[in-house]
Amino acid sequence: MYRTHTCGELNLSHNHKQVTLAGWVQTVRKFGAITFVDLRDRYGITQLLFNEELTKTLDINPLGREFVIQATGKVSERTNKNTKIPTGAIELLVSSFTILNKSLVPPFTIQDDTDGGDELRMKYRFLDLRRSELKKNMELRYAVNRATRNYLHQQNFWDIETPFLIKSTPEGARDFVVPSRMNAGEFYALPQSPQTFKQLLMVSGFDRYFQIVKCFRDEDLRADRQPEFTQIDCEMAFVQQEDILQMFEGLIKYIFKEVKKIDYAEPIERISWSDSVWNYGNDKPDTRFGLKLKNLKVRGENVCPELEGKNFGVFNTAETILAICIPDGADYSRKQTDELIEWVKRPQIGMSGLAFIKKGKDETVKSSFDKFFTEQELHSVANYCSASSGDLILILCGAEEKTRKAISELRLKMGEQLGLRNKNEYKLVWVYDFPLFEYDEEGNRWVARHHPFTAPKPSDISKMINNDSKISDAANYLNHPYADIKANAYDMVLNGNEIGGGSIRIHQRALQEKMFAALGMDEEEQTHKFGFLLGAFEYGAPPHGGIAFGFDRICALLGGSESIRDYIAFPKNNAGRDVMLDAPSTIDEKQLHELQIKLDSKKI
Amino acid sequence: MYRTHTCGELNLSHNHKQVTLAGWVQTVRKFGAITFVDLRDRYGITQLLFNEELTKTLDINPLGREFVIQATGKVSERTNKNTKIPTGAIELLVSSFTILNKSLVPPFTIQDDTDGGDELRMKYRFLDLRRSELKKNMELRYAVNRATRNYLHQQNFWDIETPFLIKSTPEGARDFVVPSRMNAGEFYALPQSPQTFKQLLMVSGFDRYFQIVKCFRDEDLRADRQPEFTQIDCEMAFVQQEDILQMFEGLIKYIFKEVKKIDYAEPIERISWSDSVWNYGNDKPDTRFGLKLKNLKVRGENVCPELEGKNFGVFNTAETILAICIPDGADYSRKQTDELIEWVKRPQIGMSGLAFIKKGKDETVKSSFDKFFTEQELHSVANYCSASSGDLILILCGAEEKTRKAISELRLKMGEQLGLRNKNEYKLVWVYDFPLFEYDEEGNRWVARHHPFTAPKPSDISKMINNDSKISDAANYLNHPYADIKANAYDMVLNGNEIGGGSIRIHQRALQEKMFAALGMDEEEQTHKFGFLLGAFEYGAPPHGGIAFGFDRICALLGGSESIRDYIAFPKNNAGRDVMLDAPSTIDEKQLHELQIKLDSKKI
Repeated sequence: MYRTHTCGELNLSHNHKQVTLAGWVQTVRKFGAITFVDLRDRYGITQLLFNEELTKTLDINPLGREFVIQATGKVSERTNKNTKIPTGAIELLVSSFTILNKSLVPPFTIQDDTDGGDELRMKYRFLDLRRSELKKNMELRYAVNRATRNYLHQQNFWDIETPFLIKSTPEGARDFVVPSRMNAGEFYALPQSPQTFKQLLMVSGFDRYFQIVKCFRDEDLRADRQPEFTQIDCEMAFVQQEDILQMFEGLIKYIFKEVKKIDYAEPIERISWSDSVWNYGNDKPDTRFGLKLKNLKVRGENVCPELEGKNFGVFNTAETILAICIPDGADYSRKQTDELIEWVKRPQIGMSGLAFIKKGKDETVKSSFDKFFTEQELHSVANYCSASSGDLILILCGAEEKTRKAISELRLKMGEQLGLRNKNEYKLVWVYDFPLFEYDEEGNRWVARHHPFTAPKPSDISKMINNDSKISDAANYLNHPYADIKANAYDMVLNGNEIGGGSIRIHQRALQEKMFAALGMDEEEQTHKFGFLLGAFEYGAPPHGGIAFGFDRICALLGGSESIRDYIAFPKNNAGRDVMLDAPSTIDEKQLHELQIKLDSKKI
Repeated sequence: MYRTHTCGELNLSHNHKQVTLAGWVQTVRKFGAITFVDLRDRYGITQLLFNEELTKTLDINPLGREFVIQATGKVSERTNKNTKIPTGAIELLVSSFTILNKSLVPPFTIQDDTDGGDELRMKYRFLDLRRSELKKNMELRYAVNRATRNYLHQQNFWDIETPFLIKSTPEGARDFVVPSRMNAGEFYALPQSPQTFKQLLMVSGFDRYFQIVKCFRDEDLRADRQPEFTQIDCEMAFVQQEDILQMFEGLIKYIFKEVKKIDYAEPIERISWSDSVWNYGNDKPDTRFGLKLKNLKVRGENVCPELEGKNFGVFNTAETILAICIPDGADYSRKQTDELIEWVKRPQIGMSGLAFIKKGKDETVKSSFDKFFTEQELHSVANYCSASSGDLILILCGAEEKTRKAISELRLKMGEQLGLRNKNEYKLVWVYDFPLFEYDEEGNRWVARHHPFTAPKPSDISKMINNDSKISDAANYLNHPYADIKANAYDMVLNGNEIGGGSIRIHQRALQEKMFAALGMDEEEQTHKFGFLLGAFEYGAPPHGGIAFGFDRICALLGGSESIRDYIAFPKNNAGRDVMLDAPSTIDEKQLHELQIKLDSKKI
């Protein structure tokens, strides 16, 4: 061992002891004839004192930043103590030292406020990981891993590994594929999740399964998506939805307790999918703050009676009109409201404008559409929106889905602006009763909102079995019996981020076939892709269900960040590249030859 | 929840309680007017008693094997107790039951002595996993996983995930590659191990790292190899070899204690590579038994002086002559010795014959080469082999490597035959001081015996730095200074199986470059493949080393098996196929098109 102690453990109890430390040179400060060196390792920083004689040798062979050294000497009480660090009461009077390895001057400083840009730090990720911020992120990640395992172990779950080289059955996202050399012309796929395997494990009787496991999706990367990501993957047999909600409410609370020392005592709020969309505009509500939506008009129906019979074309032709009420916003300046109008017009939001009503402290009301409404009528609308004196009502209108999405974004922006989204506050929500299907306009067919293995609510099974999934009248797809079948599915949402999702699964062959058929798979395709699962359901498949959590996301949120990249040791950039390794890269002709594939550059 | 209790927990303390169980029908036994059903789940088996009335309903709708049912009733003490199972004191008097799912008749019986063949059980793996043997294997695997994590956690290791989509740098085994859609014409590789990443983590200062992680090798599969396998991967900084041996001796003993309740108290035996090869013929000795080799002649040098000046051409022309001494083997019949001769002639062993000396209980000696040696000379050879009266000496001769390998196999066979390889006995060995290089005849160059990141022993570094790696005289490669450079490397061996291996790594750029050059990599190739690592070594890389254990193998050996396949939930067959999924398989033209690759069937 190159050391007797770490750089984080020495204190006054070690006074006068002879010790050896090893670590990295953080700083070198010459102070007259002597030299102070801060030595850093994973555990902390210790001050080394080089006496006059040693300082002379340093003059000849200077220590540089990030040199790796080993230093032996006596621990000594400092007169000038540093109370900010655990080792601040002592220093090491160096009697001898060895340079274990030198370092070039690092391309950026190894400090919290580093001077390195993103690209540079990604290229030198091994240096960036030396910074205490990233080190703490890795520590937190391991703590979440450990807490998850401990809880699930206590609950009788077994970690069972599922394969990585599986069969390509793309549904939704693209698979990464792996050419097989031994079976030329054929490919494995990397799993998008262990979904079918965990279901097979339930059929096998394992009853409580989990894994913390890498998954792969070949998607065009949006910001903060990674082609490989980690999931806490869980499944249980002989359970109903309520059992799963209880079990994993327990898990997340255990993680909060173990990792953050937060006692999340109250039951996790539960919101149905339709309530969530109605009140927050989306299915992953940030419930740290209110600013709930006011539904003035929905899909052509005026909900707020005061809108009836007005002559305001914009409102009259809009499918949906939604508002949020900003407390004390009535004194927003013209500049401020103009900025909000510009904000909703940005391509990411894509609205054509923003209407507003200001309800003054003096009970006067003003709006951006004064000429179509009397003051009395504006008062009524403001009252409908539960506005108090001094409030500002922001109104968006347009097509239902687009408007709802836009106002949910506006709500988040206003929450941010008003300081209502404290990253040290945590609010969890279960969202449940999702629609089972979504309508796919292009194919005029159904797609699975969650995945094809999710069961309908028990009360909706007969509706699914007894109706033809075919959509004969595309314009009125909403009237098809499948449109309002609810899924036996649930998401866990933390501060507006979906951190987990799951469902009770289908466990009967006939219902699974009906589901596949609804998604446009004929019998041949079903057999080719999922024959093994349909087969397994015929040999005593128990009722079962499960959930998967986004492990990277949970770590980032507990760390107070929205970026998962800082919580992954070696992440990829938005082009899916590892800039440190310079991967992906070309491979040898010999490799292509052995795999019996050729490049076929199409410049698509 | 579909149950109040599991099928493994009810006993007399639950007598008269109303409970609900759910599980699989193991057996149905009609007994006059009543019916007994054994209900099985992961936790055990409980006997259900269906009364006359319910038995009548069963007559109409019979329960079949592997039906999934839910049964409610009262727990009742049995008159006829079964002491073999934990629930054997009670039965459940069923008052109502529900069939949760039916089952076809399974293709093989779900019992320890199943009637299903290998292929069939692989295809229906989800049913095979219901058998208690495979269930116990998965339980043992999880226990090893858990023990490993607990020990390493106590020792301050952090689990840090490394990427799966990395760069192809094939050295030795082939990489599996993954075409990148976003970077057309380029490929990721799946890791053969996280080797370079764990070294970068040491450079980053993480100091104690571990992972239980999937690795991938595209090799032609020998029996009991899998294209994807699991490794316990560990690395430490600021350590010497001794620190690593201590740390991981602790790990394996902890696993033995936790998983097998075995207190492996004595220190693990340590054998240098050359001693191992000298005494056992290989570098993974099974030390549960002796039968050490007798080196009569090695590489042309007679070690046993009695061989000098004899007229026996076979011995005289042989490069190497090795023997093992079988206690009490002198009374082997002609048939028995003939069988051994046939055995060594099998293509897997490939020797041309087997000589022997029988030292009778009456002190007479006989041999298969009597006419070349006097009885006195045979006595001397027998004495040299430490043979006692009644022993049989088996002698192989031929080229050094081949003969040594053959006799090590013969030793194992004889150990087996003599009942010296008890699968419930465990003997661990550290083998150390491996050669750093192996000679590659084809390329007339060096290859790394372990891997290119292994450091030479400190005392051999100057020999490596100060000599040219080029082999100018191929015939005398053994005289090249590199031939006897020792690696700072070590393997852990259990009962003749290598279960782990590691090394102190190179951490200086110059030495790493020298190593790459010795392996035939020019500067351009070094930069292309390992530029990131060479670069990292310039920024303060600490001394470090590590080890990786074969997780599947450890589980199999602790389970008393030599087959890893039974310890993997969903293994592949020898052709790398998952016969349950039917993977690998062809993929859609659309997928190939997006990846910009084409099939190029060459029928190689």
